[in-house]
Amino acid sequence: MTIDAQQQAEIDAQRAETFTTRRATVPALEEVLYQAIPLLDHGFVRVVDYMGDDSAVVQAARVSYGRGTRKVSDDRGLINYLMRHRHTTPFEMCEIKFHVKLPIFVARQWIRHRTASVNEYSARYSILDNEFYIPAPEQLAAQSSVNRQGRGDVLAGDEAKRVFELLKRDAEQAYDSYEEMLNLNSDGTVRDPAQQGLARELARMNLTLNFYTQWYWKTDLYNFMHFLALRADSHSQYEIRVYADAMLDMLKRWVPLTHAAFMDYRVGSTAVSAKGMAVVKRLLSGEKVEQKDSGLSAREWRELMDSLGRA
Amino acid sequence: MTIDAQQQAEIDAQRAETFTTRRATVPALEEVLYQAIPLLDHGFVRVVDYMGDDSAVVQAARVSYGRGTRKVSDDRGLINYLMRHRHTTPFEMCEIKFHVKLPIFVARQWIRHRTASVNEYSARYSILDNEFYIPAPEQLAAQSSVNRQGRGDVLAGDEAKRVFELLKRDAEQAYDSYEEMLNLNSDGTVRDPAQQGLARELARMNLTLNFYTQWYWKTDLYNFMHFLALRADSHSQYEIRVYADAMLDMLKRWVPLTHAAFMDYRVGSTAVSAKGMAVVKRLLSGEKVEQKDSGLSAREWRELMDSLGRA
Amino acid sequence: MTIDAQQQAEIDAQRAETFTTRRATVPALEEVLYQAIPLLDHGFVRVVDYMGDDSAVVQAARVSYGRGTRKVSDDRGLINYLMRHRHTTPFEMCEIKFHVKLPIFVARQWIRHRTASVNEYSARYSILDNEFYIPAPEQLAAQSSVNRQGRGDVLAGDEAKRVFELLKRDAEQAYDSYEEMLNLNSDGTVRDPAQQGLARELARMNLTLNFYTQWYWKTDLYNFMHFLALRADSHSQYEIRVYADAMLDMLKRWVPLTHAAFMDYRVGSTAVSAKGMAVVKRLLSGEKVEQKDSGLSAREWRELMDSLGRA
Amino acid sequence: MTIDAQQQAEIDAQRAETFTTRRATVPALEEVLYQAIPLLDHGFVRVVDYMGDDSAVVQAARVSYGRGTRKVSDDRGLINYLMRHRHTTPFEMCEIKFHVKLPIFVARQWIRHRTASVNEYSARYSILDNEFYIPAPEQLAAQSSVNRQGRGDVLAGDEAKRVFELLKRDAEQAYDSYEEMLNLNSDGTVRDPAQQGLARELARMNLTLNFYTQWYWKTDLYNFMHFLALRADSHSQYEIRVYADAMLDMLKRWVPLTHAAFMDYRVGSTAVSAKGMAVVKRLLSGEKVEQKDSGLSAREWRELMDSLGRA
Repeated sequence: MTIDAQQQAEIDAQRAETFTTRRATVPALEEVLYQAIPLLDHGFVRVVDYMGDDSAVVQAARVSYGRGTRKVSDDRGLINYLMRHRHTTPFEMCEIKFHVKLPIFVARQWIRHRTASVNEYSARYSILDNEFYIPAPEQLAAQSSVNRQGRGDVLAGDEAKRVFELLKRDAEQAYDSYEEMLNLNSDGTVRDPAQQGLARELARMNLTLNFYTQWYWKTDLYNFMHFLALRADSHSQYEIRVYADAMLDMLKRWVPLTHAAFMDYRVGSTAVSAKGMAVVKRLLSGEKVEQKDSGLSAREWRELMDSLGRA
Repeated sequence: MTIDAQQQAEIDAQRAETFTTRRATVPALEEVLYQAIPLLDHGFVRVVDYMGDDSAVVQAARVSYGRGTRKVSDDRGLINYLMRHRHTTPFEMCEIKFHVKLPIFVARQWIRHRTASVNEYSARYSILDNEFYIPAPEQLAAQSSVNRQGRGDVLAGDEAKRVFELLKRDAEQAYDSYEEMLNLNSDGTVRDPAQQGLARELARMNLTLNFYTQWYWKTDLYNFMHFLALRADSHSQYEIRVYADAMLDMLKRWVPLTHAAFMDYRVGSTAVSAKGMAVVKRLLSGEKVEQKDSGLSAREWRELMDSLGRA
Repeated sequence: MTIDAQQQAEIDAQRAETFTTRRATVPALEEVLYQAIPLLDHGFVRVVDYMGDDSAVVQAARVSYGRGTRKVSDDRGLINYLMRHRHTTPFEMCEIKFHVKLPIFVARQWIRHRTASVNEYSARYSILDNEFYIPAPEQLAAQSSVNRQGRGDVLAGDEAKRVFELLKRDAEQAYDSYEEMLNLNSDGTVRDPAQQGLARELARMNLTLNFYTQWYWKTDLYNFMHFLALRADSHSQYEIRVYADAMLDMLKRWVPLTHAAFMDYRVGSTAVSAKGMAVVKRLLSGEKVEQKDSGLSAREWRELMDSLGRA
Repeated sequence: MTIDAQQQAEIDAQRAETFTTRRATVPALEEVLYQAIPLLDHGFVRVVDYMGDDSAVVQAARVSYGRGTRKVSDDRGLINYLMRHRHTTPFEMCEIKFHVKLPIFVARQWIRHRTASVNEYSARYSILDNEFYIPAPEQLAAQSSVNRQGRGDVLAGDEAKRVFELLKRDAEQAYDSYEEMLNLNSDGTVRDPAQQGLARELARMNLTLNFYTQWYWKTDLYNFMHFLALRADSHSQYEIRVYADAMLDMLKRWVPLTHAAFMDYRVGSTAVSAKGMAVVKRLLSGEKVEQKDSGLSAREWRELMDSLGRA
């Protein structure tokens, strides 16, 4: 279960309240504020607060006194310009905060983004729930034979069956031992009054990396896009990419002009190296170019041809 | 003049609009949102956006699903605990954004706080206004004779008069030359059509450091308090301290529980060194202690006696 | 095993080489450079590079052209002053880099220090070794009954025995399954040619949090001391504290004057709140003060009396 | 004068000393260590310390125990890969520290790079020297008529002459007043014993923005390259670009493999947007494309044609 009834009631109560503000407000984001979007088997992501909108980017870039003309076309032009020329500071002027529930091995990748603020649920202080991630059958991939850090075909048959068995068995056993070491029953009551129970800060080490944790995660719009550019990318591990994809939708609701510029100039953009551009120019002049006389390595050549649609 | 009529009209227009939001909202801060608080002779500071409130600190610390019980006494206790034990991350979960107009030499101190986002008015792109800072008579202080980086008595008589003359004359002449080099009249029209005008990015170097600049400045609650702790302090230069003092009032409006904890555990707190605490213990036991047998340097001794009120 | 023979040979080879440099060099630190200090049952920490020394702090504070007078007493005085008044930037001018092998649950705490650079061994790309942490008997502590995030008495008898069994059994089984899912034997050869083997980025999720990982970790002297102040503290979990304690020794070898100032003004320092200082003053004036008329909470009162040695 | 005799003597003394170290050492950089490279009319930049080399990047990426195989070709391949795929953390493992003397208006641009450590000469504490920047005649450029933040043709004749006069006159007068307000003669002696002298922290505000300041500036290799990519760029103001260009030479001495990768994949690289790449593909297929049916704005079209050499 992703969210239990009491948690949903707390979320609903918070959604039911509204306030009057003079601040920039984005109705499309307000619409989904606090709502948990289910991801993987027990995870979720939800926006719990935000500051600013597309116009706030423009106002900061202009250091302006008010909302200004507010012609959408002007704002779009300036935002495109800022994105194209990598003027980053105006995008830092907006802020967004998420509540995320995610497997620990995903959290370990995520935390590498240092320009964000994090408050994680403490397993030193509290008991972790009995929830762990098991991939859906279509995600149970073999090791890639060409990419040392990627996935290949989906496992099938007995091999798949055996992997599911092992993942499930080991996580369940880890949690059983966790409770036994804590000297607790599943309902939180003491198991054996004659025993003391191991310290929570020690017992947690017995859990496997697919157990779920959760945190509040806050970052500014610039660093949010940097996170998305890396994690919504096809080279990113599937289990973190599903979070980034869901957050990319939130970006679109929140700052549609910035989102459009981001898709065109960042996500959809190709970095062509100096040597690569020399190849493109030769091709455009009608010359026939091959990898061996291109100055590019085999891998670079393949990447360039891919991006030119000549693979 | 701090704010001209058109700027005030833009501010008023922005203040007149209100929106409905599900986000945490702080009426006491909304009350003054966008309003410019005049500082020094032409400067100001105004809050232009914020995210979160005291409860947001608590929710992040608890990684909670909703607003929770919302008993003020519980929130106060937790916030005091977090402040006392320097748990910083929950305070990073709130954000505030200011628009500030300030002399360049103040901006140079301010920018040293790196954990903030800044968009400054560009004198490469635009023309700076003819506004410079002249200290009020009661701020025209002599160099301190005991502190190499502090102020002593206020200057008086002919010396004061002469300083005012020099500051005024040089700034006015600098601006006249600035306009002449740009080949512009005071109303922005071209001065001499036969001349080209020096590039703005070069002409600006002729202005003195008391000319005003302005910027949008955004930081989180934790780093905001760090800024205030250093800049609202009596060792801070007066010209930046007036900004910090005004912003300390904004802190109180915004997050009153955090503000109270900050005043008690940070601003009003004394760091007593290991050797200093040994002295306090000896004093409490009734022993008579003197500097020479205290293990403290003369300066440390003086600082300790000051904080114990025994100076 | 902490370090295998081949790793030790690589370390020895690197230690055997020396170079000539004009840079500030610290013989006491060079003496142990690259050497692994064993910690816990399979972990270690070793210094792999550094930049600067005590004098570099002084030179930066003075923005000087050369090494200057180099009287140790002058340097000590300035360093003490900088530490006492929390002038942080001169301490940022020195840098240190470590190679650390540590359990994953310790790595998860450590990584929360964001102002550092990290390169971690990738379990997406490579296979993790079969090494996991089992506490020594004297570290197998019960949950504290007074502190929700602390340890109480050491477990004994059957309870201890059972915990050891569970920790060992679950980690061993997790690793067996890890190898089976990867379709690998312990020697790295393929287990069953008819199977594909699960992707490494997925298989890793089956390991428990006491498995060891390793990383290169680099930070500046200021942030290094901040890390040590929090992690060499008695409130820190034992398993990370042993690393911090070993690194505190490295600090002493590297920058002895800074280390001494750090111990006196940071580690040994007590922050007395505004209300707490009022109590100290009343006590010094001979007044009898009790908690209920002190303005302090019960907990604050206890903390203050502790630091005054009146508990 | 850039460096006076005493400063040069201090530098020479420091260069004369050598030490033995086990650390990675780069002879090509040691060769110029501490030497001031003169820039503009009174400025300089000099490397005062460094940590790591190309191999340190490789070792961090591999989390290795020793120097490893040390085949240059392997290191080059990995460094190219890291640069191409924007793996940034291994480049953070090297560090470099500079001493820079630069005009204040240049310092104001430079300080916007926040991921660096800075200790600046304090004009609150000390007296600034009488040194200000006057552009060389070939740098005295008019405002660009096409780019609001750029330069156009060089000024000539009477207009140039007048600009030189104004810049020189105003800076000299500002410094004269500075000394008079401080109540000091040029040799540092007191001018009038009957006067107190204005506080240094106030007097400094009378100086113009072309006066020189100086600082120690330290950053890691990744952030250093980010600085260079922005500031050694043709869109950067000339007065900061000369510093970046000199530092780019230092980069080449220090980490030649990284420098080569940086020039190819960053400096020489072109970011082609999604829409831009669609145009390139159409051109490669032999289609005739014009701006109006390209989906690009006029400005984007011009930028793309420029980079394809079809302008």
